[in-house]
Amino acid sequence: MSESEADNHQNPIRFGILGCARISYKFCRTISLLPSGIATISCISSRSLDKARQFAASVRLQSSVKLLSPYDALLEDASVDAVYVPLPTSQHATWAIAAAAKGKHVLLEKPAALCVEELERILEACKKNRVMFMDGAMWLHHPRTAEMRRLIDDPSWIGRLRLIHTSCSFLAPPEFLQNDIRVKPDLDSLGVLGDLGWYCIGSILWATNYSLPKTVVASPSINLNPSGVILSCGASLYFDDGLVATLNCSFLSHVSTDLSIHGSQGTLLVRDLVIPYCEDGASFEVISGARFAELHIGWTKKPEEVAVEAPLPQEALMVLEFTKEVMLVRDKKSEPSLKWADISRKTQLVVDAVKRSIDKKFEPIYL
Amino acid sequence: MSESEADNHQNPIRFGILGCARISYKFCRTISLLPSGIATISCISSRSLDKARQFAASVRLQSSVKLLSPYDALLEDASVDAVYVPLPTSQHATWAIAAAAKGKHVLLEKPAALCVEELERILEACKKNRVMFMDGAMWLHHPRTAEMRRLIDDPSWIGRLRLIHTSCSFLAPPEFLQNDIRVKPDLDSLGVLGDLGWYCIGSILWATNYSLPKTVVASPSINLNPSGVILSCGASLYFDDGLVATLNCSFLSHVSTDLSIHGSQGTLLVRDLVIPYCEDGASFEVISGARFAELHIGWTKKPEEVAVEAPLPQEALMVLEFTKEVMLVRDKKSEPSLKWADISRKTQLVVDAVKRSIDKKFEPIYL
Repeated sequence: MSESEADNHQNPIRFGILGCARISYKFCRTISLLPSGIATISCISSRSLDKARQFAASVRLQSSVKLLSPYDALLEDASVDAVYVPLPTSQHATWAIAAAAKGKHVLLEKPAALCVEELERILEACKKNRVMFMDGAMWLHHPRTAEMRRLIDDPSWIGRLRLIHTSCSFLAPPEFLQNDIRVKPDLDSLGVLGDLGWYCIGSILWATNYSLPKTVVASPSINLNPSGVILSCGASLYFDDGLVATLNCSFLSHVSTDLSIHGSQGTLLVRDLVIPYCEDGASFEVISGARFAELHIGWTKKPEEVAVEAPLPQEALMVLEFTKEVMLVRDKKSEPSLKWADISRKTQLVVDAVKRSIDKKFEPIYL
Repeated sequence: MSESEADNHQNPIRFGILGCARISYKFCRTISLLPSGIATISCISSRSLDKARQFAASVRLQSSVKLLSPYDALLEDASVDAVYVPLPTSQHATWAIAAAAKGKHVLLEKPAALCVEELERILEACKKNRVMFMDGAMWLHHPRTAEMRRLIDDPSWIGRLRLIHTSCSFLAPPEFLQNDIRVKPDLDSLGVLGDLGWYCIGSILWATNYSLPKTVVASPSINLNPSGVILSCGASLYFDDGLVATLNCSFLSHVSTDLSIHGSQGTLLVRDLVIPYCEDGASFEVISGARFAELHIGWTKKPEEVAVEAPLPQEALMVLEFTKEVMLVRDKKSEPSLKWADISRKTQLVVDAVKRSIDKKFEPIYL
């Protein structure tokens, strides 16, 4: 272990959690799974101290964790290096910008913002204050994702991309459709497009190495709740080189997180992209260079399953990546990497385009 | 064995093959795989007798098989009960109608016709002359298809249909793109939409139990050859009850024959729908009633693979079904079943709608 690594191990990144959302429970578990010396939770804030106390008791946080209310108190606290922000999307800009202004690094749940202009204000604040930005799309950090990237980038496997199809859905129970933040126009006005659509669009852009589509058209079949929040929608994205990507996201359909990538030379399919079936590893299917057999009585090959072990759950790998970048800024005085900010911005740009197409009665939007 | 079954076994359906296409080789193999007494090949015709001779030698047909030219001679022959028609689509109407007029049952390769009006003339001729009609979509006859049907129709498995996605493609080699019938405007002007699109559309309609979409919109991303024949295209179909189906068919992408069906309660996926990987059986994946696990660190269930054995290859089961129907007409004086004609007609109707949407610069077509 080098001296600076040893230093880091004695000097973990100290997180403050802004809000005791359900996903904050997962975040606490994530921190507990990391090797020691990487990250700790130093503060938790909630709109009410009672809620923060209940939360701390239920996840059995160490008594040294400060419980604060309101959120401002956490941002003022010198024991916080970085904030994890699982607040409703409508509050992202306010609190992410406030956190950056106080020099706190920002790990922001997805969707990053309600629109790209808002996200750009967040990113501007992060840049100005020299803090890291990353959104909470965990799947990007799974080693399976890196292995799929390798096959896509190797022209002998998938070849030229022709068609990408994604579907992300779950069957929301009635109480979700009544009360969840994600169906409330004042909290998460993008509804399923912001929640699951973030994954659909993010995975399409990932597959293209972050090329942007030229044209985005929302599907005219859309389901809105009485407040106008999107419960299910779809869209097609058209890229310069003839690549077409289709996406569907829904709170009204059985759970799915499919990504299929069809290229000239091969096809790649993953069905548990966003949340792997289990934590210790994940797989995907690939088939390349297959043809129908003579007389079309079979195929010359079947798809093969590629299994990839995960040393840690993907959310832990995400925090590991985030803290690594934060440590570079803190310890090496590096400029914060813009890699993850750029991914978020492009994803938000296409989310916006789908939303605009919906608002314009499914007209094409040209990017 | 009942007396009438014994009769049939001594009295097989005698096929005449109209044209020595590549797929006629497969048809000869298919007949050879059937239990004895079901079907025989009595005549083969080609535009040239030489070609018929070469064909007969290469598939080692019995010397009793008559070789005839031109096609009319076959239709006049009393030893022919039914014709198998693998001719280019532009010749389907002429020869299927002529065959029906001579009292020959018609097994017609897909796409059934160039447009639904043409197909209706074929079906009218079959009805008028009391002969069976079936198109050559083999996958409908695989026992896997029946097992998938059972799960889709059982509301506890898939539930209400929300999203269907199909992709059928293969990477056509340069000589195919130069010379194949399916890229020639005078022979198969529908190109890939007629060839692979027939499967995409057929499988979507099959999944819906042959409900028709209300609206069909072709995707603006389309690839035409210099003669204007479609090499790749896509479309979205919108059904009354909010179901959306998307399809893509292509001669320019790695082989795929995917069908994924997303319902409220479950998801079904098959990747070798049109031609199973191997002949002795096939499988599909189904997952039903799954959720993300607590804290979203996995799923409560993984998809399961349902394997279905095939007593015979699907093309043999297709011919078995066809001959069974023909025997009912011949031996029981039944009216020919319209089941398969109706399936073909609905498929053609939607093929037409996609084509019209393409021709109208991707305007929606209302059915």
